[in-house]
Amino acid sequence: MTRYDIAIIGTGPAGLEAAITAKVRNKNIILFGMKDLSTKMQVVDHPILNYLGLPSVTGKEMAAAFTKQLEELDITITELKVTSVYAMGDYFSLQLSNGDMAEASCVILAAGVTAGKPYPGEEQYLGRGVSYCATCDAPLYRNKTVAVISTSAHEEAEADFLGEVCGKVYYLPLYKDEPALHHDNIEVISGKPLEIAGGMKVSTLKTTEGEYAVDCVFILREAQFPGQLVPGLAVEGNAVKVDLQMRTNIPGLFAAGDIAGQPYQYIKAAGQGNTAALSAVNYLGELAKKQ
Amino acid sequence: MTRYDIAIIGTGPAGLEAAITAKVRNKNIILFGMKDLSTKMQVVDHPILNYLGLPSVTGKEMAAAFTKQLEELDITITELKVTSVYAMGDYFSLQLSNGDMAEASCVILAAGVTAGKPYPGEEQYLGRGVSYCATCDAPLYRNKTVAVISTSAHEEAEADFLGEVCGKVYYLPLYKDEPALHHDNIEVISGKPLEIAGGMKVSTLKTTEGEYAVDCVFILREAQFPGQLVPGLAVEGNAVKVDLQMRTNIPGLFAAGDIAGQPYQYIKAAGQGNTAALSAVNYLGELAKKQ
Repeated sequence: MTRYDIAIIGTGPAGLEAAITAKVRNKNIILFGMKDLSTKMQVVDHPILNYLGLPSVTGKEMAAAFTKQLEELDITITELKVTSVYAMGDYFSLQLSNGDMAEASCVILAAGVTAGKPYPGEEQYLGRGVSYCATCDAPLYRNKTVAVISTSAHEEAEADFLGEVCGKVYYLPLYKDEPALHHDNIEVISGKPLEIAGGMKVSTLKTTEGEYAVDCVFILREAQFPGQLVPGLAVEGNAVKVDLQMRTNIPGLFAAGDIAGQPYQYIKAAGQGNTAALSAVNYLGELAKKQ
Repeated sequence: MTRYDIAIIGTGPAGLEAAITAKVRNKNIILFGMKDLSTKMQVVDHPILNYLGLPSVTGKEMAAAFTKQLEELDITITELKVTSVYAMGDYFSLQLSNGDMAEASCVILAAGVTAGKPYPGEEQYLGRGVSYCATCDAPLYRNKTVAVISTSAHEEAEADFLGEVCGKVYYLPLYKDEPALHHDNIEVISGKPLEIAGGMKVSTLKTTEGEYAVDCVFILREAQFPGQLVPGLAVEGNAVKVDLQMRTNIPGLFAAGDIAGQPYQYIKAAGQGNTAALSAVNYLGELAKKQ
């Protein structure tokens, strides 16, 4: 398996700036995210006035400028979600949404901030009927009944895949658009999640519109809570704890942008991405000396 | 006297981003620096590859883009150096290089980093024959003998002014260009400063080319050491100590960019300028509540 120098998770300004800085420093990188970069950025219609260097741009124009710069530097985006990051000592193992694994010597978390809190029961039942990766865990629930809580239409393909494998799928869209799903055994539920309950394993999803008997609840958020993404990561609320060099409590793991706390601003995110990349470059230098 | 909401010291990316963010937030600002923004930026001839949003620009092109953005937001640059910042409780008093004072409720230090260390004797004799402001202190040395240590041709006008007032001026340029000075009593010295010595007051400037009897040594650096600029400011080496919100140890005083430590990178500086400005806006909100 290729071991990348740096895996970068997220294609907002923090992840993009980290990628271009790491690339300019000749590191072998893999950048996980979306080709349209960031849903948040794409929907900003009013002009963004305070990004130094890009006067008065819309989010779409900003994204177009960033995409062009990536192309010039020959940086590609791997359109997969990272569902778990495991610190293995001198490298990291990344679980991907297609079921594959990837390895990198260091990791930069730039996946954005997730509003809200885990649902009651979510953390308790993680691995016992709560999953963040449909592709990884669908085989465990063949012909069974599952629920999918989804924050974005991007996740509908995952739900369709679960429809193929599972007996019954309840789909709870937490977004406005009408879901376009392709399997008759998928039922769209209009209730909002209240609690995940059960005994040793999950048995029930409670919602504002009633309770559903399920064997698993798949929670597909655009960005996971950082403490769920990386076991052992020190967090404060929804933010990863970092120092001024964007180091986390785990050696070789860095964070930048909204995931590292307020203010939620494009240029602040980019600046932190730059610092995180240079800290990763320094870390790689130290790692090389040890080996 | 106008009391500005925010005084911003420095026109590199940190100061500029702080200015545009503060302006967008409708604050009454004063921005101290140079119309050509930053000498460092102007001399970068190779393409800068890792400023997200400005692919492959020279320093001059970057400066031109920034200048255009300032104009669009109607932000002007006050071409004066700030030689001292005094914390007065709920406001700051700024000593300017033309002898004037300015007042602001908060201050953002973004003046860049100064390489090296103070000269031996410099800190000891500060105010007793060492000065950072020719206009402020020239009258104290009428018809006397002074030395000027200057890191930039920008300071030659200051030396000329000292030539008008003082009896004799020794001028030590620490830059390559031939000084263009206009008074016969100014003697250009090729030696490098070694030590400022004296008894109760300065009496001698020791250089690599000999010793000079002087009543005062004016040290005109493009950026002062931060601890000299702001009495009581906590520093670590040449960097101001800051937290992730760019707060210093002095309430209402923020720092961003190279002055706040490594890495010395344009986009990192801009990101910190953004954070400093938003922290200043929050501070102003708290100040208003108290009054």
